[in-house]
Amino acid sequence: MTTANTKATEEAQIRALIDNWANAMRAKDADGVVSQYAGDNVKFILAPPLKYTRHNPFGKKALEDWFSSFQGPLGYEIRDLNITTGDDVAFCHSLNRMKATTTDGAKVDLWFRETLGFCKIAGKWTITHEHSSVPFYMDGSYKAAVDLKP
Amino acid sequence: MTTANTKATEEAQIRALIDNWANAMRAKDADGVVSQYAGDNVKFILAPPLKYTRHNPFGKKALEDWFSSFQGPLGYEIRDLNITTGDDVAFCHSLNRMKATTTDGAKVDLWFRETLGFCKIAGKWTITHEHSSVPFYMDGSYKAAVDLKP
Repeated sequence: MTTANTKATEEAQIRALIDNWANAMRAKDADGVVSQYAGDNVKFILAPPLKYTRHNPFGKKALEDWFSSFQGPLGYEIRDLNITTGDDVAFCHSLNRMKATTTDGAKVDLWFRETLGFCKIAGKWTITHEHSSVPFYMDGSYKAAVDLKP
Repeated sequence: MTTANTKATEEAQIRALIDNWANAMRAKDADGVVSQYAGDNVKFILAPPLKYTRHNPFGKKALEDWFSSFQGPLGYEIRDLNITTGDDVAFCHSLNRMKATTTDGAKVDLWFRETLGFCKIAGKWTITHEHSSVPFYMDGSYKAAVDLKP
């Protein structure tokens, strides 16, 4: 059983990782983002396909291409962050907001759900799983619900 | 540090929980599904809103209503299940498939991404977080990608 004290320490480390990750997103620093993930991670992201793994990674190059589709820095907000941590396994969930302007001048302002899974590997917390999504409307339109606010 | 032996035991317990949960889904047994969750859980599901919590739960009544929109039992398949477990915190991810016929006669055959977060509470693993989703097309249509296969 993990003691409350240890839990608080682990949670602080994970919170620092998430801060670094969000700051790297804001700065469009692909290295800074990628360095928070384990090499062998599984991602379920906003865009198809269903799943990215080490066999079809959404890695540094994909991230750089995606970053380059936006003008200037990204707005990135994390709300209602809830971290559950053990000794060497943890997960968190939050509602995240991305605000940006594409190189075509289109404004993006999107709230989405974010879940991260972490493992402590060689004494360092790292992201091994990411799941980002919006729900979709069940009215027959199958439209992604990109207009929801928390 | 959790030993390999303990990890295997914990993982077997979580796998049994997931089996029970999937069987309850197939049988449209709302009690059987709900009993796998902690009272204080946070769900990000396929349908809006962004988030269900104990303040606006997707609980037994909502599940019963949803079940009653389908004829007969549900088809429910879990593929590529990957469980990461510690002493008292765990998470898993998989690609799940739901096959069903609505009371209106419409066929549903949907692959989606599933992430579950678990805590061991009073010696028993329980689901504290669920995230289910499909990605959406980035072609300007904002259509949910309900046609993807693994």
